[in-house]
Amino acid sequence: MVKIMECIPNISEGRRLDVVEEILAEVRQVAGVTLLDYSSNADHNRTVISLIGEPERVVEAAWRLIVKAAEKIDLDQHQGEHPRMGATDVVPFVPIRGMAMEECVDLAKGLGERVGRELLIPVYLYEKAATRPERRNLAEVRRGQYEGLKESIRTSERTPDYGPSVLGKAGAIAIGARPPLVAFNVNLGTTNLEIGKAIAKGIRGSSGGFVNIKALAIDLSEQGLVQISMNMVDTQGTPLYRALEFIKTEAAHFGVPIVGSEIVGLVPLEAMMDVATYYLGVHDFSSEQILEKRVFGF
Amino acid sequence: MVKIMECIPNISEGRRLDVVEEILAEVRQVAGVTLLDYSSNADHNRTVISLIGEPERVVEAAWRLIVKAAEKIDLDQHQGEHPRMGATDVVPFVPIRGMAMEECVDLAKGLGERVGRELLIPVYLYEKAATRPERRNLAEVRRGQYEGLKESIRTSERTPDYGPSVLGKAGAIAIGARPPLVAFNVNLGTTNLEIGKAIAKGIRGSSGGFVNIKALAIDLSEQGLVQISMNMVDTQGTPLYRALEFIKTEAAHFGVPIVGSEIVGLVPLEAMMDVATYYLGVHDFSSEQILEKRVFGF
Repeated sequence: MVKIMECIPNISEGRRLDVVEEILAEVRQVAGVTLLDYSSNADHNRTVISLIGEPERVVEAAWRLIVKAAEKIDLDQHQGEHPRMGATDVVPFVPIRGMAMEECVDLAKGLGERVGRELLIPVYLYEKAATRPERRNLAEVRRGQYEGLKESIRTSERTPDYGPSVLGKAGAIAIGARPPLVAFNVNLGTTNLEIGKAIAKGIRGSSGGFVNIKALAIDLSEQGLVQISMNMVDTQGTPLYRALEFIKTEAAHFGVPIVGSEIVGLVPLEAMMDVATYYLGVHDFSSEQILEKRVFGF
Repeated sequence: MVKIMECIPNISEGRRLDVVEEILAEVRQVAGVTLLDYSSNADHNRTVISLIGEPERVVEAAWRLIVKAAEKIDLDQHQGEHPRMGATDVVPFVPIRGMAMEECVDLAKGLGERVGRELLIPVYLYEKAATRPERRNLAEVRRGQYEGLKESIRTSERTPDYGPSVLGKAGAIAIGARPPLVAFNVNLGTTNLEIGKAIAKGIRGSSGGFVNIKALAIDLSEQGLVQISMNMVDTQGTPLYRALEFIKTEAAHFGVPIVGSEIVGLVPLEAMMDVATYYLGVHDFSSEQILEKRVFGF
């Protein structure tokens, strides 16, 4: 099976689109890597990029992107609503096919080491690549942002995994590995936001729910609905159907129906197949039974 | 999108496995065609073969198989439990990806014309390729089998679509086009076969149910279950979830639960995606959102 890895670098530039294009041009040059998507936000002053391809090629594309972003983005001049600590701010590697998480962790470490050594940019390993439990959480790694980290990087608590304990204008980078994230929203047939908030609180890991679900209730007043907006950070551990069935049960308790749902952006095939086999009750289904798989070998 | 077509030729040989191998060797020689599966049954004296690949290549493989089977199989010597009328008995083309049914119909006609002209074997177009309504049904096309057709082929009612109105030792071939067939079985938590029979009768098209479902109730007494065994002959028109939900409702009426189900053999990706999006309620999902699709382009 061909190995496929995704990488979703976030860079701290969402206003000077010519600069964004210059940085994307580095990625486009790398054969064997597909630029799946990118999206610039001026308020956040940030661009989220999605690359996919063979693991080694994706690492090469991420490296080139980091080099160019460090050259073009000066954190001392950067302002935006989104928390950030580096020109390239976050670089997660995501195993898509034929890869274990451990391989992504190794690639994250390899890239981090090279960035620290050749570019002298401090690197923090995060999520599945974290070397300390408190660094699993990206928010924790980025605490104080670029400005705060200038000082705190000298403390032993904030010593980077690679590179110097000194922050230049390119800031620091969080490099890590994580499962694919699926944005899954479920709409409730109510205008009562409090019901949505209670359900979101029940389902998200941070308040006692599922460890792999982040959730918020959103008021879609023009549609007369409340939406449970979720980030499913590991659909193998916590599948889509489990989130849906949980919400269905909780909503029924309030006498509220589910009136539809949506998947925003991309979803791994396996996450959808898990849903199909769960509801069909075909417990011993193998993905080898998918006709197209026999032809395309994916 | 690469076009993919499946073909499931049935040949009237299931005992002389060396002959079967010789015929399969013809198929294996054709580049761009994958021999997905084949299964010989001695009682039926018949082998069911499944090929897949680019449409033109699959037609070439079917042609070579027909030529070799006509050379090796003598219907005057053939006995078996399964109804048959030819050395190659049935050749259905099935659109899998990037193809309309109409293209399969055209390819069926092209192959039929060549078989009639070059091999002087009578050909009947059936199912979606049928030229007369009564020839849609394969059982009707094969009525009287090889022995009966020797006489009746001279009547206007049985005039072949291609080839002479005379039957040689290779018999006649039904060539056609049809949607992919999915074998879907649902297990009921009961030992009462009568309940299964009532549900099978309700769901199958031949007794008033869904036009694209063939169904039988089977006694799985050693498992203490009754199974509704279905052939879903068009999962676009009649999706898997609709069959399941129908059975669930009918079974609940008898106080009987569904205790699992199975898909036997291959299933098109789209049929499984339809199940996932139905139960998730993601009504505007596009298969372009499948990550692997963006990479492999299937």
